[in-house]
Amino acid sequence: MSNELIAAVITVSDRAFKDVYPDETGRQVSQLLNENHWEVIRSIILPDDQQLIEKTLLEYCDELLIPLVLTAGGTGFSPRDVTPDATRAVIERETPGLVVAMIHDNLPKTAHAMLSRQMAGIRKKSLIVNLPGSPKGAVEDLGVILPALPHAISLIRSDPDAEKGHRSV
Amino acid sequence: MSNELIAAVITVSDRAFKDVYPDETGRQVSQLLNENHWEVIRSIILPDDQQLIEKTLLEYCDELLIPLVLTAGGTGFSPRDVTPDATRAVIERETPGLVVAMIHDNLPKTAHAMLSRQMAGIRKKSLIVNLPGSPKGAVEDLGVILPALPHAISLIRSDPDAEKGHRSV
Amino acid sequence: MSNELIAAVITVSDRAFKDVYPDETGRQVSQLLNENHWEVIRSIILPDDQQLIEKTLLEYCDELLIPLVLTAGGTGFSPRDVTPDATRAVIERETPGLVVAMIHDNLPKTAHAMLSRQMAGIRKKSLIVNLPGSPKGAVEDLGVILPALPHAISLIRSDPDAEKGHRSV
Repeated sequence: MSNELIAAVITVSDRAFKDVYPDETGRQVSQLLNENHWEVIRSIILPDDQQLIEKTLLEYCDELLIPLVLTAGGTGFSPRDVTPDATRAVIERETPGLVVAMIHDNLPKTAHAMLSRQMAGIRKKSLIVNLPGSPKGAVEDLGVILPALPHAISLIRSDPDAEKGHRSV
Repeated sequence: MSNELIAAVITVSDRAFKDVYPDETGRQVSQLLNENHWEVIRSIILPDDQQLIEKTLLEYCDELLIPLVLTAGGTGFSPRDVTPDATRAVIERETPGLVVAMIHDNLPKTAHAMLSRQMAGIRKKSLIVNLPGSPKGAVEDLGVILPALPHAISLIRSDPDAEKGHRSV
Repeated sequence: MSNELIAAVITVSDRAFKDVYPDETGRQVSQLLNENHWEVIRSIILPDDQQLIEKTLLEYCDELLIPLVLTAGGTGFSPRDVTPDATRAVIERETPGLVVAMIHDNLPKTAHAMLSRQMAGIRKKSLIVNLPGSPKGAVEDLGVILPALPHAISLIRSDPDAEKGHRSV
């Protein structure tokens, strides 16, 4: 099994995109990934535009074949929060366990954990996970799922023609 | 941001609809809303009829523009429990965090918490949340999500043309 | 209300199907069901083939009318893990409370609980629940939902023409 700890980080924020403020969330997410031996080969800021988010997810999954694609931001209830909807549109298999784990961890901390619409799912050989937009929220949620991510990536990238858990003969 | 604490309560119950018993659940849900500074401008009892539930949800969301539309009842496993299915048919964006929060709170209390099929989601400028049918269950679940609802409504009703968190310039 | 504690157990595993190893998971799941007064009338091993899983689920639900259909295996992230996708294709009403209950129970034990894609739902008069593939995981998850299953089956099999909770007059 290959176990390539390679990731992309997509910050979704109208304001960060327009340089109203620096992308502190993307910076902290990438730093936490690096500290855990992940290489971040793409780091980009997008506005809250569903089509543009979908297009970028497709490029990262289908062309660049990046194993882990994290988004940060656009997961709330406002009309421009469309990151989960873009994610749902491109994933082939939902992975709700990752989402429940993050909500489960956040609920005791803040009632606003209920207002997350985070999605997670597999597209081809890539795992896409939505993180919230605040630096604190994004880093905490990433911390929750990090222990499971290397195994997740291994499984997703295992040989489909091999029987599960076996090399093909 | 507008912050209109205005709600509708839809009790879904064949028996309450036929006046077999009084709508204690709807009464207690409305009372808890009132105690928390919400105005309940519509309170209705419907039978377990999916089409009728959908029609009423559409009227409350699209014509009356009611910010919070709560249903109570019809969320279980029996063939006539169709409230979640009516809800799923009309919402545009799912809000699973609210549902996970309610289940999370109920699981330590009763194994039957597993048998809820509650849904929650956003349609246009309205938030729809399914509560269970028993007065105790409905009031407890509403108590779980109440702290997050004013902020939820503010976000949903924020100006889509404004950048998130900013007034448009 | 009828309360027929009758079940089928479908083990989904390429390796068990090819007799690479014995179906210990199916054996232990059936044993736990028996100890809790369920009769297991079908017990089968299938390869990780989505079409075949769907066909078998349809036969068990629509022709054999088995109240509880448990699957074990094929719920992970590898390309051949398709049991949840087969399940989603045949269920008519999702029952996410059962899934959240199992994840909720597993999260404190292992980070890999996040990597489950288990589904559960109702098709006609049958409840389908996905269990994980390991004997330990399957038995633990079944233990979590067992207390709610007899009531679940009663509700699903209650008379749709009767008002809920009443015999028809």
